[in-house]
Amino acid sequence: MARVSQEHLDARRRQILDGAARCFARNGFHATSMQDVLTEAGLSAGAVYRYFRGKDELIAAIADEAFAGIRGAFEEASRSTPPPTPDVLLGTVLRLFLDERIPGAGRVAFPRLILQVWSETLRDERLAATLERGFTAMHEVWTRLVEAYREAGLVGADVSADHMARVLMAVAQGCIAQQALFGDMTVELLEDGVRGLMSMRTQSPS
Amino acid sequence: MARVSQEHLDARRRQILDGAARCFARNGFHATSMQDVLTEAGLSAGAVYRYFRGKDELIAAIADEAFAGIRGAFEEASRSTPPPTPDVLLGTVLRLFLDERIPGAGRVAFPRLILQVWSETLRDERLAATLERGFTAMHEVWTRLVEAYREAGLVGADVSADHMARVLMAVAQGCIAQQALFGDMTVELLEDGVRGLMSMRTQSPS
Repeated sequence: MARVSQEHLDARRRQILDGAARCFARNGFHATSMQDVLTEAGLSAGAVYRYFRGKDELIAAIADEAFAGIRGAFEEASRSTPPPTPDVLLGTVLRLFLDERIPGAGRVAFPRLILQVWSETLRDERLAATLERGFTAMHEVWTRLVEAYREAGLVGADVSADHMARVLMAVAQGCIAQQALFGDMTVELLEDGVRGLMSMRTQSPS
Repeated sequence: MARVSQEHLDARRRQILDGAARCFARNGFHATSMQDVLTEAGLSAGAVYRYFRGKDELIAAIADEAFAGIRGAFEEASRSTPPPTPDVLLGTVLRLFLDERIPGAGRVAFPRLILQVWSETLRDERLAATLERGFTAMHEVWTRLVEAYREAGLVGADVSADHMARVLMAVAQGCIAQQALFGDMTVELLEDGVRGLMSMRTQSPS
């Protein structure tokens, strides 16, 4: 029997994940059954269960992919010295979430899926652990970034890299929430707003 | 028959809302029944349905209260000229969400409830409308605030008040999400991180 190529396995996995993401984005995580996912992906139960044992594994895989995407964009963007300023970097990250990530599902679908993942972690300990791992890894890269800003003299020496990293991540998370809720968030708006905050003076110049 | 005092009506309404919030925070919005709310509040169905016809109305009332709380804190904090800087104002707003808002439910309960409200708006149009109204009103006060910063020379004349308002709201939303997900957000962390971002220079001083 011929061995199935890795390429074929990857394409099949992609097909299942995209089908699941479309279902979750359209009807919500709770109202979606594995049968809905099979139908959407156009595959048999045997073909799907070979990759994912249930909805929990599907949503964990979608969350893992999102984190991997952010890390990739980050590593790509932060190679220069000094690294791009937060407005540019946050724009790079947000673009990942505002582009149509789920083929055929529209621009709001992915942010809405993320909102559901957040909400779902409150009741699903394994998913909560997946999210905490991803979040911890992201926090590390953002913290190193703030340290690079400090070395380049772009932020004050007394700034806590840990705290600033958390707030930069909060900006990204808040923008994803606004896109999910209102559908009118743009990369330009984010970049412009962050530049505004960076332009602030703590004392009146007068 | 003696008329029931407004004070009594308000106290009863409070009792129901707190009971509902505890149930939603503990078991999630979907897994909570109106019977659970009656039991938690220690009231009869007649007493509760006089105020709220169902879970939808309860969660809408909880969302309205949260928005009213933010607006109140904002008006209180922004009376001075120039208004407090974003780190201080965001700290004032976040404190509302980090204090134990639902009696006996702990500090993480309210942010978790908010995450559920966000998620629920994707399937509940009336709740989505409630949230959009509240968000629009908040956006107006934050925009006026940025305009006040501009008049005081605290931000550049070219900064879009609209965009900066959206990003300041995103910081608050992201911090609420982090508190719901990880339970380790503090007002000090937020204030410190925002100050770091405000301290940034777009050009290296070297």
